[in-house]
Amino acid sequence: MKKIKVGVLGATGMVGQRFIQLLSNHPWFDLSVLTASARSAGKKYREVAKWYLETPMPEEVAEMTVVDTAPDAVKKAGGTEIAFSALPAEIADVAEPEFAKAGYIVASNASSFRMEKDVPLIIPEVNHDHLELIKVQQKNRGWSGFIITNPNCSTINLVISLKPLFDEFGIKAVIVSTMQALSGAGYEGVPSMAILDNILPYISHEEEKIQTETLKLLGTYREGQIQPANIKISASCNRVFVLDGHLETVFVELKRPAKIDEVKKAFQNFNALPQKLKLPTAPIPPIVVREEIDRPQPRLDRDAGKGMAVVVGRIRKDAVFDEGIKYLALGHNTIRGAAGASVLNAELLVKQYWKAAQTI
Amino acid sequence: MKKIKVGVLGATGMVGQRFIQLLSNHPWFDLSVLTASARSAGKKYREVAKWYLETPMPEEVAEMTVVDTAPDAVKKAGGTEIAFSALPAEIADVAEPEFAKAGYIVASNASSFRMEKDVPLIIPEVNHDHLELIKVQQKNRGWSGFIITNPNCSTINLVISLKPLFDEFGIKAVIVSTMQALSGAGYEGVPSMAILDNILPYISHEEEKIQTETLKLLGTYREGQIQPANIKISASCNRVFVLDGHLETVFVELKRPAKIDEVKKAFQNFNALPQKLKLPTAPIPPIVVREEIDRPQPRLDRDAGKGMAVVVGRIRKDAVFDEGIKYLALGHNTIRGAAGASVLNAELLVKQYWKAAQTI
Amino acid sequence: MKKIKVGVLGATGMVGQRFIQLLSNHPWFDLSVLTASARSAGKKYREVAKWYLETPMPEEVAEMTVVDTAPDAVKKAGGTEIAFSALPAEIADVAEPEFAKAGYIVASNASSFRMEKDVPLIIPEVNHDHLELIKVQQKNRGWSGFIITNPNCSTINLVISLKPLFDEFGIKAVIVSTMQALSGAGYEGVPSMAILDNILPYISHEEEKIQTETLKLLGTYREGQIQPANIKISASCNRVFVLDGHLETVFVELKRPAKIDEVKKAFQNFNALPQKLKLPTAPIPPIVVREEIDRPQPRLDRDAGKGMAVVVGRIRKDAVFDEGIKYLALGHNTIRGAAGASVLNAELLVKQYWKAAQTI
Amino acid sequence: MKKIKVGVLGATGMVGQRFIQLLSNHPWFDLSVLTASARSAGKKYREVAKWYLETPMPEEVAEMTVVDTAPDAVKKAGGTEIAFSALPAEIADVAEPEFAKAGYIVASNASSFRMEKDVPLIIPEVNHDHLELIKVQQKNRGWSGFIITNPNCSTINLVISLKPLFDEFGIKAVIVSTMQALSGAGYEGVPSMAILDNILPYISHEEEKIQTETLKLLGTYREGQIQPANIKISASCNRVFVLDGHLETVFVELKRPAKIDEVKKAFQNFNALPQKLKLPTAPIPPIVVREEIDRPQPRLDRDAGKGMAVVVGRIRKDAVFDEGIKYLALGHNTIRGAAGASVLNAELLVKQYWKAAQTI
Repeated sequence: MKKIKVGVLGATGMVGQRFIQLLSNHPWFDLSVLTASARSAGKKYREVAKWYLETPMPEEVAEMTVVDTAPDAVKKAGGTEIAFSALPAEIADVAEPEFAKAGYIVASNASSFRMEKDVPLIIPEVNHDHLELIKVQQKNRGWSGFIITNPNCSTINLVISLKPLFDEFGIKAVIVSTMQALSGAGYEGVPSMAILDNILPYISHEEEKIQTETLKLLGTYREGQIQPANIKISASCNRVFVLDGHLETVFVELKRPAKIDEVKKAFQNFNALPQKLKLPTAPIPPIVVREEIDRPQPRLDRDAGKGMAVVVGRIRKDAVFDEGIKYLALGHNTIRGAAGASVLNAELLVKQYWKAAQTI
Repeated sequence: MKKIKVGVLGATGMVGQRFIQLLSNHPWFDLSVLTASARSAGKKYREVAKWYLETPMPEEVAEMTVVDTAPDAVKKAGGTEIAFSALPAEIADVAEPEFAKAGYIVASNASSFRMEKDVPLIIPEVNHDHLELIKVQQKNRGWSGFIITNPNCSTINLVISLKPLFDEFGIKAVIVSTMQALSGAGYEGVPSMAILDNILPYISHEEEKIQTETLKLLGTYREGQIQPANIKISASCNRVFVLDGHLETVFVELKRPAKIDEVKKAFQNFNALPQKLKLPTAPIPPIVVREEIDRPQPRLDRDAGKGMAVVVGRIRKDAVFDEGIKYLALGHNTIRGAAGASVLNAELLVKQYWKAAQTI
Repeated sequence: MKKIKVGVLGATGMVGQRFIQLLSNHPWFDLSVLTASARSAGKKYREVAKWYLETPMPEEVAEMTVVDTAPDAVKKAGGTEIAFSALPAEIADVAEPEFAKAGYIVASNASSFRMEKDVPLIIPEVNHDHLELIKVQQKNRGWSGFIITNPNCSTINLVISLKPLFDEFGIKAVIVSTMQALSGAGYEGVPSMAILDNILPYISHEEEKIQTETLKLLGTYREGQIQPANIKISASCNRVFVLDGHLETVFVELKRPAKIDEVKKAFQNFNALPQKLKLPTAPIPPIVVREEIDRPQPRLDRDAGKGMAVVVGRIRKDAVFDEGIKYLALGHNTIRGAAGASVLNAELLVKQYWKAAQTI
Repeated sequence: MKKIKVGVLGATGMVGQRFIQLLSNHPWFDLSVLTASARSAGKKYREVAKWYLETPMPEEVAEMTVVDTAPDAVKKAGGTEIAFSALPAEIADVAEPEFAKAGYIVASNASSFRMEKDVPLIIPEVNHDHLELIKVQQKNRGWSGFIITNPNCSTINLVISLKPLFDEFGIKAVIVSTMQALSGAGYEGVPSMAILDNILPYISHEEEKIQTETLKLLGTYREGQIQPANIKISASCNRVFVLDGHLETVFVELKRPAKIDEVKKAFQNFNALPQKLKLPTAPIPPIVVREEIDRPQPRLDRDAGKGMAVVVGRIRKDAVFDEGIKYLALGHNTIRGAAGASVLNAELLVKQYWKAAQTI
C-alpha cells in the first residue's frame, strides 16, 4: 500500500515529540511535515527541538526542516492528508479551523473544540459511532476538511475503564481522585521546587474536563447530535512526583448489582472495534487487569500495551453506594492520554470511514 | 507545679523519636524513662537510636539509659505515671496490658486495642467524653491502670475535618482517597526503588482502619458503650513520595443543605475542648482553612500549629451527592497523626479526668 | 539602642524571601523598605510575592507596600542605611551603582561586582580585612555609599572549610565536585521533568565562580589591592534533587603534612572574628565536624547553626596528592550561601567599621 | 549452532533479574537453570521473584522451577556450562568455588574473588588478555572449572573511559567523585526516607573497590601474574536519588600533553576486541561522546548501547594537574556495571578462549 502523508502541528513540545515517536516507522503513515512557531520555521528539527524522550530523536526527523503552523506553509512543504495537532489550546483555537477549512483532516489533542456540538470527541474503543458528527461539522461550517479530537489525558484512562461497566451494568455515579504525572503539565509546567517532597492538589480546568468530557464520550449519537450520558460525576485532581502515568482512584455506583468477579470479567473481556480491526496502535487487550494487591503502579505499568493499554487493579466493593465498586485505573498520559489517542483516532478514521482506507 | 513523670515505650523508632521531640521540654511532663527491646536495654539512647529528625537529639535524652519494655524494668528505672506507647502492634498486643495491669496509664499510638469495646479511642477535639470508658475497662479487666488510644494517622486528619460538619450539618456518607507520606510506613518501610517515579496504591489495613475507627470516633457514649456513628464510608489509600504529611481528597454527603461559605465557617469556627482548656499541645485553631486555589500542600502546610493543626482547602460543591461537598484535608502524620495525638490525649486526661490534674 | 533601617532590593524572589526571614525580628536591623520591579511597585508585599518558605510570611512584612528598585523610590519610602541586594545580576549591574552613588551601603548577593578590583568580596570568618577596599572603592568611583559582596553559594561553603587548612597547613591545590540544591537555581530554575530520576551535570558559570572567587577570598590585602592566593583549583558542578543544601566532595593538597586528627582539630578549633564579636547571625561554631561515617547529609545537616554553619565530615587521607586529604563540606545555599552571608557581612560592617556601630 | 546451556545463580534479586532480561532470547545462550536460596527451591520463578523491571518477566522464565544454589542441584536440573553468578558476596564466598570445583565456568558479578591473584577481573574492552589467569587458577586450585569476574559497577564505567586515555596519553593520577544510583544498593538497600531530599555521601567499600580494581584492570599480565598499573587514584562516592545509572566526575592527570580534541577523538575512536568480534552484547561504539553542555544525564543516557555503552561529556582542561583534563562518565550500573558485564565476559570467553567457541 501507499503510505498516507501526515504532519504534526506543534512538533517541538512534549506531545509533539510523542507524535514523532509514534509516527516514525508507522505502517500506514508517512511523517512528512513538522510545524512550529514562526520563530522556528526554516530550521532543522534538530536545531529547534530540545528532545525530552529516552529513545533517541529519529535521524530522518532530525534533518526535517520545520515550517510555520499555517496551511499554506504545510502545502508548500509537500502537503499532508492528516494533520496531527499538538498545539496549545490558545493557538489551536485559531489554527485548527484554518487547516480544516483548507481541506485538512485535523486529528487534534488540543482541548479547544472537544466540547463543540459538531466536533467528534473520540476514543475508538468507546464511541467510534460519534464520527458521524464529521458530516454535521462539514455541513455546518462549510469546511472541506474537518476536526476530530481526543479527550483530556485524565479522562481517557477513566472512560476506557468505565466503558465495559457502562455497557454491562449501567452507571449512576462516578467519583474519581487523580494522581497525575508531571509530563501532563508540559516540560516547563511544574518547577522542581514546587513538587519536591510535595503534592499539588490543583490542576487548572482538569476537574471540569473530566466532568464534562466523560458525559459526551459515553453519550449517544442520534440525528446529528450527541445526547450526553446521564451520569453524576465528581473529580478531585492532584499532581504528584511521577514522570509519566496518571493513576486514578475510582468509585462507581452501578445501576445493576455486580459481583467483583463479574466486574473483573467485564474488564478482561472488553474487546472493542480497534482491536477487532487490528489497528496498528490498538493495544491488545485494551484493559489489563492486575491481580496483585499493590498494582497498578505508574512506573511498572504505564508502558503496558506500548503505553496504549489502561491498567486496572484492586477491584473491590465500595460501601457508600448501594451497588458500589471501587478500583484503580492507570494510563500513560502522553501516549494513551495524548499523542497515541490521536493516532488511534486517525487509524480508525482511515480504516472505517475514509475512502482512502480502501487502499490499505 | 511538680511535673508528671512519663516514659516512652519503644523509644527508638520514628514515632518514638517524635514522642521524645514533643516531651523534651514539655511544661507538664518529665521524660524520665525510655524503653526498647531487650537487645538495647542497658545502653545509652545515643548508642541505640539512629536519629531521623532534622532537629538534633536532645542532649539529656541522648545520655539516658534505655531499659527493657517491661513494667518491672520501668519501675526499677524510677517509674512513671504515664507510659506513651510507640510500640509496634505485635509487641503492644502483649506489653500494653502488662503495663495497665501494673498500674500504668498507657497512652498508646498502637493499633492493638483501638477497636476494643472498653478502650477509649480518642481525639480530644472530637470525642473526649469517650474517656468514660476508662472505668468500664478497669472494671472489666481488673486493672489498676488503663489504656487509652489515638486513631491511625490517616483517620485523625479526616475525622477532625469531619467533626464540625457532623455537628452542624450531619453526615450521611464519606468517600476519601489518600496520598500518604513515607514516614507513615516507618523508616525502613518503603524502599526508595519502590517509590521513585511511582505511587504505591495499597497500604496494608489502612482502608479498614479509616472505615472502622471513624465510626467509633464519631459514635456516642451511652451507658458504658460506644454506639458507632451511622455513616457510610469508603477509602482508597495510596503511598506517595512525600516525607511527612498525609493529604486526603474528601467527598462528603451531608444530611442538611450547606452553602460553601457555611462549610468554611464551620471549619473556621471549630473550637473544641483542648483549645478551651489551653492544653499545651493543642493547636489554635485546630483547623486551618487555606483560601488559595492550590492548598493545602504537604511541604508547605504540614507544620501548621506545630504539626498539630489539620489544614483544609478547596472546599467546593460535589455533583454526585445530593447535598455534596468536597475538599482536601492535610495533617502531619507523625505529629498530629501519632505522637502528638497521644500527648494531647494525655494532656486532656491530666487536666480533666485525673486527680493529679488539680495541682496543675 | 536604635535599630538601623535596612531594605531589601529584589524582595520577592527566593533570596529576597530568605532576607526577609532573617531580617524580620533582627536585633540590630529594622526592615523598613522592600523593592521589586516597577510592575509590582505600589502593591502590598502579600499581593506580589508567592511565598516559598515553610515558615509563614511575617505579618508585618505582608502589609508593607513594595516600591520600585530605585534610590529615589526608596528615599521616598523613608530611606534605609543598608540596602541588601537580592537582585538578579543583570539588574544589579545597573541598580547597585546607582544606590552606592546615592549614598547607600549596598550589601549584595549578586555576582555583578564580586570580582571588581575595588569591591570587597567578603566572608567575615575568612577575610574581614578586605573591607579596607571600601575606601579605595569610594575614592575610585566618587561614591558616598559603597558596595560589598558575598561569594557564590557553592564557593562560600568551600572556602569556609578551606580557611583553617589554609592558615594551619597551607594549600597547594583543590579539586571539588559539587552536588547542588535546586533552590540555587531559583524557584522556576529547574523544571521537575528535568531532574526527576536524574542529575544535571552543568550549572552555568558555577565552576568559573568557584575557581576565581576562592582565590580572591583567600588572597591578601596590601596597599589597596587584593593579591590572589596562589592555589590551583578545579571544580565540576552538578545539580541534584535536593531542596536546599550544597554538598561538595573536596580533595586538597596541603603544603605541610597533617594527620587526620590535626585536620579535624583545625576545623573544630576554627574560631573567627564574627564568633568573637558575637555577631547575631554568626554560627557557633562556624564549622561543625560530624563523626558519623555517612554525614554530612543535606536534609539532616543543612540547618546546623540556623543554616549558617558549614558541616564537614568523612575527613580522610587522599592518595593522589603527596600531602592529600579529602572530605565533604555542606552548607545551606540560600542562608549561609546567600542571604545570611550578606546579613553577616552587614553585621560585621556595623560592628567593626562603621561609626554607627559605636551605639550598638 | 547449538546454544550453550547457562544458568543464573541467585536469580531472584535485582542483578539476577537483569541477567534473566539479557539472557532470555540471547543468540548464543540458552537459559536453562535458575537458582535461589533453599527456601525458594522447588517453586516456580514466578512465585519466588518479585519482579522489579519495567519490561515484563519473560513467560518461559516465569514457569521455570528454581533450584538450590548448589552444583548437585544444578546438575540434577539438567546442568549448564556457564553459571552466571548474581550471588551476594557472603554466599559467593562459599558457593562459587564449589561450582568451579565441580567443573562449571562461573562468570561472576560478586566481589568475593575479584582481587584474588589468580582470578581474572575482566572488562573485555580493557584487558581480555588477563583471561590467561584461568590456567593459573585451575592449576593452583586443582579445579576443572574456573571463576572469572567483572568489576564493581562504579569501577567499570570509570575504567572503560580511562582505557583510551591510558593507551594514548598515559595516566599518572585519577580523582573521581561519584553520584550513584539506588539500584546499586539492591532493591531494599536504601530506604526512601533516607534519600528523599537528600544525598548519602558514603557507600560501604565502594571507594576501596574503585581504588584497587582500577589498578588490576589497567595492569599487565606477565608470566602468570598481573602487575598493577602505576596510577595514583582517589575516589569519593555518593548515593543520589536516581534509579539507574552511575554518573562520575573524573579528573585525570595525563603523562603526555593532550588537546581536548585529541582526548575526544581518543574516546570516539576507541574500538576494542568485543566490537571487532561483534560479540552480541558489545555496544557499538563502546564510548559515546555527547557534545551538549549538560550531558551525560542518567535518565537520558543510561540506555545508550542498550545500557552497555559508557557515555562521556563535558571534556575540558583541568587546572590542578599539569596535563590535566576533566570530564563526566556515565554507565548503567546494573547492565554495563553488573549483569551485562558478566554476559559480555562470557561471550568473549566463548568466542576467543573456549573450544566450544569454534562451533559458533
